[in-house]
This record gives sequence, C-alpha cells and structure tokens, in this order.
Amino acid sequence: MTQPLRIALAGLGTVGAGVIRLLETNGALIAARAGRRIEVVAVSARNRSKDRGVDCTRFAWDDDMTALASRDDVDVVVELVGGSDGPALALARKTLSGGKHLVTANKAMIAHHGMELAALADSHGLALKFEAAVAGGIPVLKGLGEGAAANKIERLYGILNGTCNYILTQMESTGADFGGVLKEAQALGYAEADPTFDVEGVDAAHKLAILAALAFGTEVDFGSVDISGISRIRAADIAQADALGHVIRLVGMAEEQLEGGERRLFQRVQPVLVAKSHPLAAVDGPTNAVVAEGNFVGRLLFQGRGAGDGPTASAVVADLIDIARGNNTAPFSLPVGMLEAVAPADPGHRRVRAYMRFTVADRPGVLAEITAAMRDAGVSIESMIQHGRPEDDSLEPVLVAIVSHEGPESAITAALALLEGSPSLAEPPLVMPLLG
Amino acid sequence: MTQPLRIALAGLGTVGAGVIRLLETNGALIAARAGRRIEVVAVSARNRSKDRGVDCTRFAWDDDMTALASRDDVDVVVELVGGSDGPALALARKTLSGGKHLVTANKAMIAHHGMELAALADSHGLALKFEAAVAGGIPVLKGLGEGAAANKIERLYGILNGTCNYILTQMESTGADFGGVLKEAQALGYAEADPTFDVEGVDAAHKLAILAALAFGTEVDFGSVDISGISRIRAADIAQADALGHVIRLVGMAEEQLEGGERRLFQRVQPVLVAKSHPLAAVDGPTNAVVAEGNFVGRLLFQGRGAGDGPTASAVVADLIDIARGNNTAPFSLPVGMLEAVAPADPGHRRVRAYMRFTVADRPGVLAEITAAMRDAGVSIESMIQHGRPEDDSLEPVLVAIVSHEGPESAITAALALLEGSPSLAEPPLVMPLLG
Repeated sequence: MTQPLRIALAGLGTVGAGVIRLLETNGALIAARAGRRIEVVAVSARNRSKDRGVDCTRFAWDDDMTALASRDDVDVVVELVGGSDGPALALARKTLSGGKHLVTANKAMIAHHGMELAALADSHGLALKFEAAVAGGIPVLKGLGEGAAANKIERLYGILNGTCNYILTQMESTGADFGGVLKEAQALGYAEADPTFDVEGVDAAHKLAILAALAFGTEVDFGSVDISGISRIRAADIAQADALGHVIRLVGMAEEQLEGGERRLFQRVQPVLVAKSHPLAAVDGPTNAVVAEGNFVGRLLFQGRGAGDGPTASAVVADLIDIARGNNTAPFSLPVGMLEAVAPADPGHRRVRAYMRFTVADRPGVLAEITAAMRDAGVSIESMIQHGRPEDDSLEPVLVAIVSHEGPESAITAALALLEGSPSLAEPPLVMPLLG
Repeated sequence: MTQPLRIALAGLGTVGAGVIRLLETNGALIAARAGRRIEVVAVSARNRSKDRGVDCTRFAWDDDMTALASRDDVDVVVELVGGSDGPALALARKTLSGGKHLVTANKAMIAHHGMELAALADSHGLALKFEAAVAGGIPVLKGLGEGAAANKIERLYGILNGTCNYILTQMESTGADFGGVLKEAQALGYAEADPTFDVEGVDAAHKLAILAALAFGTEVDFGSVDISGISRIRAADIAQADALGHVIRLVGMAEEQLEGGERRLFQRVQPVLVAKSHPLAAVDGPTNAVVAEGNFVGRLLFQGRGAGDGPTASAVVADLIDIARGNNTAPFSLPVGMLEAVAPADPGHRRVRAYMRFTVADRPGVLAEITAAMRDAGVSIESMIQHGRPEDDSLEPVLVAIVSHEGPESAITAALALLEGSPSLAEPPLVMPLLG
C-alpha cells in the first residue's frame, strides 16, 4: 500500500466529528477501497476544548484555520466551516493556490464562488470536490457528472432541502399550519433557530445552481435562480392539493430553453403540486431526491438522506476516496474554461398548469373580478373552488383556489398583474405549478 | 486534447447500434467531458450486411470477433455479444490478457466469470467495467463502489428485471393473469420469445450476485443465489396483496449475516409483497430500482430505466468516459485479492412476515389441516382469507391466503414441510415475504 492520504479538517461541528468517526469506524474498509489509508493529521475549529464525542487530541491543532493550507504534512484540506465568504473562502483559496486538494460541504461557497475555485483547481491540477454540498449523502454529483456523463441532460429537478420537505410532509400528515410545524421542527433539530435560508428556498437554490452547472455544462449562476419558499403555504393549500390528487413539495428545477436559437437557462426553486403518482410525491420527511432526464438514459432518480452528520460524512469521505484513487474528474465534469455563460431564460414561454390561491375579502363580486382577470389574460380555468368562511372560526380567511389548463406562464403573470392592488385580495396570490 | 480513445465493438444488436448512435449524437459533449474523443475504429458481428440504422461501413470489420482483441489500433474492447461463455468469454479473456481495457454489458458472463476476469484486469493493470450489466442506465455500480464507498453496506435490495416488473404492474392495473400479460409483453418487445431467464428470476440473480460482490466486498457467488420467479403468481395474489396494502414485485435481496461470528451472505431473488408506502412500490413498468443501506449514509435509492438501447448505451459510454479520464476504480471496488469468499447464509434465521397462498381442494378439513401445520411449526397467523369457489366459474381453484406474524423463516419452512404431499393441496404453496 502506498503512502496514506493526509487530511486536515477545518470545522469540527457535527459533520466534522462525523467525518472523524466514519474514518475510524470504517477505516479498514476505506483503506482497502481507496488503496491507501486516509488519515486526519490536523484540525482547526473555533473552540479547542469543546467535547465533540470524538478524541481530537491526537491531531495537530491550528488556531488559525488558514494555517492548515500551509502544512507540509497535509495533502487534502476538508472545509466544513460553512458560509459563502469569510474564513471558508479564504481557506479554500489558500488551499488550492498552495497546491493542496480541497473537499468541501459548503454549498453557499460553491454557489457563489464555484467558478473561481474550479479555475484555481484546474490551473493547479488539483481536485476540488463537493459531493456533500448537494443532497447530503446521495452521490448525485458523481451520478450526473460521471454516471450520466454521456448524456445531454434536458431537465433536472428535485427536492433539495430536507427541512422544507420535513415541514411539508408534517403539515400533510397532521393538518397543522406552517408556523406550528416549523416550531416543532426547530425543537427536533430539523430546522435552524433562524430558518430563513431553508424555508425561503435559498439553501435549495444554492444546490440547484451547482447541479445545473454540472448537468448543463454552464457557469454557476446562483444570482439568476428565481426563488420562493414555503412559508406562505397554508394547511388549506395542502388539503386542496390532496383533493386534486397532489402533494406539495419545494422543488428546484433547471432546464435548458432555446430562445431565438440561443441557449438559455431556466432555474427556479418554488413549491410545486406534485401528482401522487410521481416518484417525488413519495419522498417524505428529511429525504432529498433528484431527477435528471438525459437524452439517452431517460429519467434517473437519486434519493436518500439530504443532511445529517452520517450522510454528509459519507459524501465527504467518498470524495477523499476518489482523490486517494486518483480519480480526477473536473469539479463540474468539464474543464472550467468550457463551461458556458448562459443568460437566464424568460420563464414566460414555459407551458404550465398552475394552482393559484387567492385570499379574498368575503364580499360580492370577488369571484367575478378574479375570473375576469383570468379571461382577459387568456388563462383558461380548469377548476375553481371557493371555501366559504367556516361558521366556527370567523378569523379564517376565505380562500379561492383555481387550477388553470396548461398555457404559457406569461398569461398567468399577466392575470395576476391585472389583480395587483385589488382591494378584494387580502394578500398577494400564491402560485404553484403542477408536476405530473 | 490528447489522443482519442479507440474502441472496438463486438456485437451490433440494438445496444451496439445504440452505442454508435450515442457516440455520434453527443460526440462533442462526450469528448469535452472525457478530455479526448472516443472513436469506434473496428466492429464485429455475425452478419455484416444487416441494416442497423447506423452506418458501420466506415469502421474496420473483423469477421472473427476475437481478432478485435489483437488490433494495434484499439485501446478498449466493448463486448455486447452476450452469453455467459462461448465467444463473449473468449473475447473477454483475450482482450484483458492482450493488454486492452474491457467494457461489457454482459451480466451472465460477469456473474459466472467475474472473478477470473477481474483478476486478469488487476494483474495487467487494466480496466474491466460493466455498469451496463446491472440495472441498465442507472449508475448504481458507480453509486455503490464509489459514491457510497465509505460505507459498510448492510443490506441491498431492488427491482432488477424490467420484464418482470412490467408484467407485474400490468397484472396489477388490468387484473389479468400472468399468461396473458406475458404474451402481450412479448408482442411489445418487453419480453423475449423464450422468457425463462427473465420470468424465472435468473437475469435478476445475475445482477444481484454482481451487486452483492461490489457492496459487501465478497467474491461473486451466483451459484448461491436462491431464485424463484413470477410465473406462479395469480391475479388473485395481486388482488390479495392490494387488499393488504401491498403490491407484488420481484425483488433481489442480499444481506450479510453473522453465524457463530462468521460472515455469511444471504442472496435471494423472489416475489415480495411490498408495502404501498415503500419507494419500491412506486416503481412501475420496465423501471429498475436499487436500495442500499449503508452504516453512515443510511438508505440510498437509485432508480431509472433498466434496459433498452438508450439507457444501456448510456452506461457503456459512461464506462468509456471513465477510462478516457483515467478513473481506475477496481471492478468490484476492491482489488480482487481482497474480495472475501463467504459461505451462503442459512435463511432459516431470518425473521420475516410472510404471505402464504395455498391452492386447495374444496373439501372439509382443509383449513384445519393448514392451521394445524402452522401451529405445530410455531408459525403465528396474523390473518387468513379463504376465497370460496366463485359460482360463475367452477374451474377457478379455491385459494387460501395466510399472512404470518414476524418469525423465523425456518418455522415457515417447517410448516410447509408438514403439508408437503397433502392431498388437500392442488399445488405447492406460494410463499412471499412482506417488505415494509
């Protein structure tokens, strides 16, 4: 067996401790598969004395995290600090410029600075790997960038945030409203104290931007992801979706569109009504799933645990095994210079069936106003349900739900523009496309 | 860009033609991802003049397939001839001994001779790749051998035969019996003229033996796979499963067991009652799916099209891209010398809930006889349903279905042994475990 692969770990939170535990527990197996031992030699974190459930005293310690990048006894730096900029980015830059491989679980950093870091890795002939940044333990970057590498990917979509999926499936099974389920998820550790990044779709958008670059061979373009989250979804929406044979999931979707012969990239994270017969409808709790449609392979689905120390550590160590084996696929499956800069698509051309929910004042003429706007904008209505104010709860708003026939998204946008500012609407409408 | 990777193709059936079409259609993309062009230079098949929908006249032609292995202008031989022995095996041996990489879609050959071929590849420092042999286009060998490489896999199971899955889901949706659906599947090209290998589970067993070796780090042991197929399943079984909240799927399952401190390998292909809430229940038609449970990653699911020229070609070319990139993972993720020879497990220890269906003579005392056997063998009955002979069809047999509580499989075996040869039974009982 050759020399061990020597690792420095920056960040000793649950994932960092999980990586240490995994390398210990499965050490012999990992060495056999990797062809050499994988050894942690140095670590860095904010608090040296904190009990992490694993013994870190045998590793060298650097108070200054970026010092890990300069150690002579280290081949790979594993960055598990998090944050798109700051110390994580400083460490990543120094690691790659200094001639060491980088493995990271940091989706925000790759979504914002992936191009720069991939260029650094390319120019130094180094590995930059981030399987753990997308969909936790699911080897989906490998699945797309290597397993489906022969395909032109035509469409990619998936459930990329376990917190949202947990909240939505809890709302589904208990009938409770968003706020209550969020509190419960926070108590269980499925949601952060500040849940904004998760529930407003930003975390899913980070992952989507990374997946899209890999799948379509385009530059990472996080800034063009159109993002909406799940905080406005009510129990009534879930009940209504159920009656229509659907469940609600937060779905990230990316697709190539041609506009005037030019490649354009559509990227969006939003809640979607998923038909119960669709594989994504069966994805419950904190599970993630990614569907990719290739021009030869057809539809592939990858599913598994999207977060947690075990799955994330599994993905980090898979990257380390790849490096130990000398598997040298480019970070985005193509040399960074070949990734195309592609302008965002105009979503108006997309043909969708949409669920639109209006919270209305309970007064005459409201339905006429809404249906007139639909007619004037050319939206064809497939079904409409109004739930009257329940007798026993005068605080419940009156909801009107409309499902459109398939048509251009621009028509729906136009209909909603006609209704904007109407005193009949108590809040902006909630629009969710149907996926079937 | 470096020299092209030069390919010889043996076998020009639908998959061979698919590989040529894929390399043409996505050629630029494949070259960009692989870092070099992938070029077919020579081909061989039985009939030179057959129209295959792709132009083969530009390639060199060898009437003798094994001559491909000796060509100076070839780096990789792609074997798409099929058959566990004969010309395919001769070509594989000659290719690897002669210093060329081998890519194959031949599950029977790898199930029977995978150890010998992997040893040849290892000793010559060559790639032996067979992603297309298991689950068509799904990159499951890569997913397990690389993506989940850090894990000890504890259990592996899946739907590995698209023909059986198509037949079962058609029986489900139409209520038709096995024979009729098989004929229809043959007419549609989903089943072979001689469907034995598919419907009796042999094809699934080939794939299971390959997956098990990869997942558990054991020698391929096809001979120890316990195999039963789907030909005895009746419409009444599917209706009964439905009433119990289950669907029937042909499932290949492999699991490590410890017996007296020794590793043992359980490998079985059989029809299973899958709870409708389980992801495998949603796997319809000719789709394949593999579930692997790792000690850190948890449950992973890989799903996609299990056969067909497009998906199979996608997997073959993914292997070629890996070779072009210099990704050199061992065929079974471990050097062949480290794969353990593990004896087959005694399935009697396994704890199962089982569905048992008896076809009985319509006479007094039959139920007493069956239930006494269950009692005497220690099988606890959870539910029992007897469907009386329908008035309008006196040829329909009378069926008794029993679902047991969870208990050792040995008890069920013992109960059935007590009933063996009983004149009350019109045919041997059909036993299917429940997966939930």
